[in-house]
Amino acid sequence: MQQLGYYNGSFGPLEDMTVPMNDRGCYFGDGVYDAAYSRNHVIFTLNEHVDRFFRSAEMIGIRLRQTKEELKAILNDMLRRLEPGEYFVYWQVTRGTAVRVHAFPESDPPPNLWIMIKPGAVLPLDMKVKLRTVEDTRHLRCNIKTLNLLPNVLASEAAARAGASEAIFHRGDRVTEGARSNVHILRDGVFRTAPADNFILPGVARAHLIKACGALGIPVDESPFTVDGMMAADEILISSAGSLGHAAEEIDGLSVGGKAPELLEKLHKYLWNEFLEETKS
Amino acid sequence: MQQLGYYNGSFGPLEDMTVPMNDRGCYFGDGVYDAAYSRNHVIFTLNEHVDRFFRSAEMIGIRLRQTKEELKAILNDMLRRLEPGEYFVYWQVTRGTAVRVHAFPESDPPPNLWIMIKPGAVLPLDMKVKLRTVEDTRHLRCNIKTLNLLPNVLASEAAARAGASEAIFHRGDRVTEGARSNVHILRDGVFRTAPADNFILPGVARAHLIKACGALGIPVDESPFTVDGMMAADEILISSAGSLGHAAEEIDGLSVGGKAPELLEKLHKYLWNEFLEETKS
Repeated sequence: MQQLGYYNGSFGPLEDMTVPMNDRGCYFGDGVYDAAYSRNHVIFTLNEHVDRFFRSAEMIGIRLRQTKEELKAILNDMLRRLEPGEYFVYWQVTRGTAVRVHAFPESDPPPNLWIMIKPGAVLPLDMKVKLRTVEDTRHLRCNIKTLNLLPNVLASEAAARAGASEAIFHRGDRVTEGARSNVHILRDGVFRTAPADNFILPGVARAHLIKACGALGIPVDESPFTVDGMMAADEILISSAGSLGHAAEEIDGLSVGGKAPELLEKLHKYLWNEFLEETKS
Repeated sequence: MQQLGYYNGSFGPLEDMTVPMNDRGCYFGDGVYDAAYSRNHVIFTLNEHVDRFFRSAEMIGIRLRQTKEELKAILNDMLRRLEPGEYFVYWQVTRGTAVRVHAFPESDPPPNLWIMIKPGAVLPLDMKVKLRTVEDTRHLRCNIKTLNLLPNVLASEAAARAGASEAIFHRGDRVTEGARSNVHILRDGVFRTAPADNFILPGVARAHLIKACGALGIPVDESPFTVDGMMAADEILISSAGSLGHAAEEIDGLSVGGKAPELLEKLHKYLWNEFLEETKS
């Protein structure tokens, strides 16, 4: 089996899994999620992803039935049922099963835990990416990793149609983040990344990039930057669970970056070593 | 049977219905919906709701397998399978079933049609409602009736906890709409309602209120109003499929409205007669 689904203790091939139509995730997107990649059956930075998942759930008033340790045990157990390989491990929690009423259900149903695992790998950092800017029309609680992802879907599709692998959101002039990544720039030797406010998700890979900068003596500036600032930067990086800090070679069809290759290589080497070390068999 | 679910041609008791875990509605909220109420097995203003539903779907790039006439036939057929009574008829379409990838699936799966029907009635207009204001942190495409409703869920819960039946969103000073209704005011004999821009859903009941004003010679001003303007208005009304124009007696615990009872009664009489007439057995 290479694709596995899990729902409240039941599991099986992902494509065979079903859920109740009355799950509040199905009609309100009333839930939160998190995701990480595995190598050698080790889920990279699992603790940080599970911590963030519980924070997201708490911010929308969902209290999981599982403890963090129990959740990690379930995720690891599911992963071990799959053939060896690299996997994308995704999980979400929804506010229970109930007939559709906007306010929290009076029956106070237990939250539903979903897991979806499919083949997927953290990508080597020596490849460059193409990006596409998209106006950020999302809600104002982007610090919560919710299931309300339609704007991200539409932005990702716009990027794909333009031949880009990721959409970069901007609210007016300010660059916020990618549709499924954070975005950062290197300029004059400084690593700059938008502050972790309500306009962006506090990325685990973003935190590791900041940590890498600390270890390598690269100054970090957590303040917003503009679209023009991004286009003119020495390097533009995106980061996510599957992309630890890929550099961009093109944004909106224009050549960008490529002006600080040595600094970039130092960062990449640090990040990739950390990943390999933590996911050793 | 009093609660019925339908999914791509299969149907049964709502609580027994299941859907594939891989439906894009389940993890992205990648779909749109609409809903209306029935009386005597007649779905009130069905044509307008189905027209809006197809517009919502088109705005996010979903092309239904069904024509409008086919969808109406399915909804009416499902309704006839239920005991006589008044029902809330809800339907949604999602961007098909596929393993989770943000951009539209390359397999181009057919959209999934969901229907959920439960007992529910358009409420008599002689009752008054209590409202609660909530900062509007929603996305900027509120003119599309999407499944991304988590902010509406949280606002509705905040209202319920405060003893109110509906939350009224405001973006800064500007009143936008309710969590599941439009909001309007009467002042100095004029009916004022926010313009149908990207900050509000163009309500079917809102359109009928405007039509009623036309028939009754009440001037209509489609321009935004503020929270202060709402608090000081002669009457405050909310409208939705289930509430054709209920007046508020309280907002955030303060007494409001009640200063134009005759105008209100004229409007209510017109709206209620229209509803009864259109849903005669």
